[in-house]
Amino acid sequence: MIDGILEEYRIKIESRLDMFNALPGQPYDPVIDAARYSLLNGGKRIRPIILLEFYRLCGADDDCAYNFACAVEMVHTYSLIHDDLPCMDDDDMRRGKPSCHIRYGEGMALLAGDDLLTEAFAVCAKTLGLPQERVVKAISYLASAVGSSGMIGGQVIDTSVSVENEQMLFRMYSLKTCALIRAAAVCGVILAGGSDEQLKSAENYAENLGLAFQIIDDLLDVDGNSEVIGKPVGSDDKNGKNTAVRLLGESRCRALANQYTENALLALNSFDGNTETLKALTELLLIREK
Amino acid sequence: MIDGILEEYRIKIESRLDMFNALPGQPYDPVIDAARYSLLNGGKRIRPIILLEFYRLCGADDDCAYNFACAVEMVHTYSLIHDDLPCMDDDDMRRGKPSCHIRYGEGMALLAGDDLLTEAFAVCAKTLGLPQERVVKAISYLASAVGSSGMIGGQVIDTSVSVENEQMLFRMYSLKTCALIRAAAVCGVILAGGSDEQLKSAENYAENLGLAFQIIDDLLDVDGNSEVIGKPVGSDDKNGKNTAVRLLGESRCRALANQYTENALLALNSFDGNTETLKALTELLLIREK
Repeated sequence: MIDGILEEYRIKIESRLDMFNALPGQPYDPVIDAARYSLLNGGKRIRPIILLEFYRLCGADDDCAYNFACAVEMVHTYSLIHDDLPCMDDDDMRRGKPSCHIRYGEGMALLAGDDLLTEAFAVCAKTLGLPQERVVKAISYLASAVGSSGMIGGQVIDTSVSVENEQMLFRMYSLKTCALIRAAAVCGVILAGGSDEQLKSAENYAENLGLAFQIIDDLLDVDGNSEVIGKPVGSDDKNGKNTAVRLLGESRCRALANQYTENALLALNSFDGNTETLKALTELLLIREK
Repeated sequence: MIDGILEEYRIKIESRLDMFNALPGQPYDPVIDAARYSLLNGGKRIRPIILLEFYRLCGADDDCAYNFACAVEMVHTYSLIHDDLPCMDDDDMRRGKPSCHIRYGEGMALLAGDDLLTEAFAVCAKTLGLPQERVVKAISYLASAVGSSGMIGGQVIDTSVSVENEQMLFRMYSLKTCALIRAAAVCGVILAGGSDEQLKSAENYAENLGLAFQIIDDLLDVDGNSEVIGKPVGSDDKNGKNTAVRLLGESRCRALANQYTENALLALNSFDGNTETLKALTELLLIREK
C-alpha cells in the first residue's frame, strides 16, 4: 500500500525534475548533463514527498505545490554535488556511481551544483495557482533554512571544526540534515495556508525525523551493505569524522533512532487529516537499508 | 554631481549589505567572514545602482527595491568567488587583495559563494511594501538570468569550449557578463510595475552596457595599471583565453566599446523620466581605469 503511494509520488516528481532540467534543443550542454546525472540518479525523494504530504495535510487538494517540491529536491542534489567535491568530503562514489566531479570534472560539478541551486529558486517562483504572498514566504523560509544559519552552517561545522561531543554533533546534524527536511515540511504548510500551530508541528516532526535519519545513516556506514548503499562502508571512519556511532556506540544509536522516530510520529498527531502516508514513510526510513 | 549621487547610492547599498551579512552575536562564523571579505571589498556596485535607477525611472519614488538591489550584488559576489577557484579561473588576486580561497581556503570559499547565492534569494524575498506578484516575477527573472541559460551558461563556455570566433565570444559575453546586468535593470522595471515596453528597453540598455563593460575589461587587462585594477595585467593572456582584444585588436575594441555605449544611451531615450544619472554612469564606465 505505502509502496504504491510512494512510487506514484516518485514518478510524478521525477517526470517534473526531468522536464525542468531538460537538455534544450540546442547543442549539448555539459552543465545540464552533469546536473541531470546527479538529479536523476535514484534518490528516495523523501523531501518533496514530505512537502506534498504536509501540503495535503493542511487541507489543499491540488497539485500546485509540485514545482516547489521539486525545487527542494534540486537544492538537496546541489548540496550532495558540492559536498562530494575534493575540497569538501572528497567522495568518489554516490548512489553506486562515480560522483559528479569524478564523471564530469571539478569545474563542471561546481557549476552543476551552482546551477541546481539557482534553478531551484526559478522553479519555486513558478508556483502558480496560489496566493503569491505564500510563495514569497516559502522562498524566504527555504533560503534561510539552507543558508549559513541552516544547511551551510552545518557544512561549516563539518569541515572546519573538530566535533568533540554529543551536543555539538547534534547541533551539526540539526543544521546539515534536519534544516532542509524542515524546510520541506514547513513550505508544504506555508503553501497550503496552514496555521502557525501546524507550522510548529511540521518543524517538530521534521527535526525529529531528520535526527533519526542521520543516525541511521551513521549506522549504515558501519554495518550496512556497501552494494545496497552504493558507496563504501566505513567512509566516516576513513575521514576521521566523529559520528553518532563513534561517540555513543551502536546500541545507544539504535535506541535514539527509535526515540526520534517516535517523537516524529507523535508530532503528526496534532494534525486532523490523514497522516497514514507520513507515518508509514517515517517508519520505513527507520528500517531502511540504504 | 554624478560622483556625489553614486557615492550616496554606494553608502546606502553597503550599509544594507553589511547588515544582511552581519556576523551574529554568536561565536565566530568563518563562512560569513569569508562572504563579507569578498562582498565588502570595494566593488563599484553598478548592478544595484542600475536596478534602483530603473525602479525610479519607472515611476517608483520609495526605497522598497533596496533589498532586491543588494541581493543582485550578492549574486555578483558569489559568481566572482566561484570564478576565482582553482577548478575555474584559478585567480589569486581580486580587487587588490588575495582571492577568497587564498585567504580562507578552497572549502570555505566554495561555501561562502554558496551562501551568498542562497542568502541573496532570502533577501529578495524580504522585498516588502510591493505587490508580492512582482517580487515572485523578479525572482523568476533573476534566477533564470543567472542559471544555465544565462550567467552559468557563459561560465560553461568559458571553461569548457575553445572560443574561436567573434560570434562565439560575444555569445559568451552576453551570458557571462550581460545577463546579470540585464537582470538588474529588468528587475528594477518589474518591481516598479513598469510596462513590457520599458522592460524591453531595459534589456536593450543592459545588453549594450554589458558588452561595452566587458570589452573595456579586456582592454584594461592589456593596457591597464595593475595597481589600479588590483590584479596583474595580462591574466587573460596567461590563461590562453581568447578575448575581444586578441580576436579584434585594440583599436577595433575601442570603437566597439564606444558603439555599445552609444547604443545603451540611445535605449534610455524611450523613458520619459530623468535618465541623467544612468547616462552619466554609462559614460563613466566607458572611461574607467579599473
